[in-house]
Amino acid sequence: MHSIASLQKILDEQLPKLIFRGNPPELYDPISYTMNLGGKRIRPLLVLLGCDLFGGDVDTCLRPAAAIEVFHNFTLVHDDIMDKALIRRGKPTVYRKWNPDIAILAGDTMFAMACELLSETDPRILPSLLGLFTKTAREVCEGQQYDMNFEHRSHVSISEYLEMIRLKTAVLLGCSLKFGAILGHAPEADSAEMYAVGENLGLGFQLQDDLLDTFGDEEKFGKEIGGDIVANKKTYLLLKAMETASPAELAELGRCFSAKDLAPEVKIRAVKGVYQKLKIYEKTKEQIDLYFTESLKNLKEADAAESRKEVLRSLIVKIQNRDF
Amino acid sequence: MHSIASLQKILDEQLPKLIFRGNPPELYDPISYTMNLGGKRIRPLLVLLGCDLFGGDVDTCLRPAAAIEVFHNFTLVHDDIMDKALIRRGKPTVYRKWNPDIAILAGDTMFAMACELLSETDPRILPSLLGLFTKTAREVCEGQQYDMNFEHRSHVSISEYLEMIRLKTAVLLGCSLKFGAILGHAPEADSAEMYAVGENLGLGFQLQDDLLDTFGDEEKFGKEIGGDIVANKKTYLLLKAMETASPAELAELGRCFSAKDLAPEVKIRAVKGVYQKLKIYEKTKEQIDLYFTESLKNLKEADAAESRKEVLRSLIVKIQNRDF
Repeated sequence: MHSIASLQKILDEQLPKLIFRGNPPELYDPISYTMNLGGKRIRPLLVLLGCDLFGGDVDTCLRPAAAIEVFHNFTLVHDDIMDKALIRRGKPTVYRKWNPDIAILAGDTMFAMACELLSETDPRILPSLLGLFTKTAREVCEGQQYDMNFEHRSHVSISEYLEMIRLKTAVLLGCSLKFGAILGHAPEADSAEMYAVGENLGLGFQLQDDLLDTFGDEEKFGKEIGGDIVANKKTYLLLKAMETASPAELAELGRCFSAKDLAPEVKIRAVKGVYQKLKIYEKTKEQIDLYFTESLKNLKEADAAESRKEVLRSLIVKIQNRDF
Repeated sequence: MHSIASLQKILDEQLPKLIFRGNPPELYDPISYTMNLGGKRIRPLLVLLGCDLFGGDVDTCLRPAAAIEVFHNFTLVHDDIMDKALIRRGKPTVYRKWNPDIAILAGDTMFAMACELLSETDPRILPSLLGLFTKTAREVCEGQQYDMNFEHRSHVSISEYLEMIRLKTAVLLGCSLKFGAILGHAPEADSAEMYAVGENLGLGFQLQDDLLDTFGDEEKFGKEIGGDIVANKKTYLLLKAMETASPAELAELGRCFSAKDLAPEVKIRAVKGVYQKLKIYEKTKEQIDLYFTESLKNLKEADAAESRKEVLRSLIVKIQNRDF
């Protein structure tokens, strides 16, 4: 049985060895750059945890875990082009440091590399991993498309928003834990349960991002607070506010979001004022806790040794309490 | 044993059924659009031919063949963004009809879909197909990157150019035939031979494209003749001309390619004039024929019934003599 720290150590040592370089450098340099930007490596960690939970050999997880991490980073490279993001993990995004063509092609190559890493899995397990992975990959694309669609719509319902973040973020966490369970030879019912653990964790995690973007501590969160408000982003907070606002509060929100000449800090203060009146922080926190509770319930139902479950449970609780 | 016509009929009937639709339509409409643009479907045909050559069941090839066709079309969607291509098969390219973001994401989804189609292959065969496919996918990206690099270089050697088209075009034809051979349970030596058949066919095919772009018949070729010359493209023809030109002819080529105000038809006529003096048509044709001869030789060496080989041989000869 492994601790989180020992699994992280394995990933820190082994993952970089699996990200191979090739030619031409114009293609592979942006890939190395992306893979060396750091990040929490939460997805590969979940693969290893899912496997260890069922007493599997975590060494068999390294390539599939790397596949998911490379895939995740590929989606970031392409999303950054679409979202016109300037900075990723404190560094210029690939399309800005190089150009959009190179970012498109480096991303495509990373997707191929992810599948290549997967192709070396035990052949008895490969079909189920590949089927799950490719379905998940398609869902992540669907989620990104819904996200782009929502920018151009005046009304988005909360259930539509939750389905979007499920596709864009949560399914890949579900896939990661289910990968681990399959690699740990868990029965089908348990690996399905692990998928649900990850999916609910992902939903909670993404809503936390929404919450921290408006109510977080700038120092701890690592990026400017209020970015979503300034960018008129339809987050859970805004949609929840629109759902519960009085006509006067709705008008106030409308004024904030349509005013072209409002200074960012004024706009942020005004919107946060409405959010506070409507108890949006509390309502969002409640929804987040629902997802984490559900995730922990799914974990409880999986048929594995309690001592092993404790490792994953402690990680989920740690994520639930994050403020960064 | 199948004829080309009967295999084409199978593909025409079965491939469209395998290209599923999903939501949101903003993502899947461009995919349907792309897959319905037509095209020669040469790659899936090669998969079926490779399988039939070894007496395999072509029905087992349909999903892998569709995977290769979807993958190929994905590369076109992304290449068109990078190459700023306006028209593909007589219709507006995806990034123009919609926008670059949608073209990026629809392409990504097609790549996922291709791998998803592959994931349902017989598990005993899946690892070798997936390994070959993902390596090939990465090579195709490398080829596209070399192609983009060459635009910004003043000198490109012929061997560098040939390696670029091998990666960008030929390996996927090799992969298609080898897919078929593996699906037809051919021994390793024979499936490697089939890869070589496809690779040499692909090299010849791509050089034909270069040749037809300058010396083809506009009506038959289906696009304007001289496009490569107008776009200053470093084709085999130009590189061969630069290799064999006298100082005076080199200067003439330099004038044509650097003049900003030359009318397209004047530029085309002048460059073709130099090409004719240097017998570039004949030299390119010679190189093309070398590749086709090599491809046919590889086919000869494969251990399969002569009557079955005849079907593929006739296709290769038909392609060798194409003027469109």
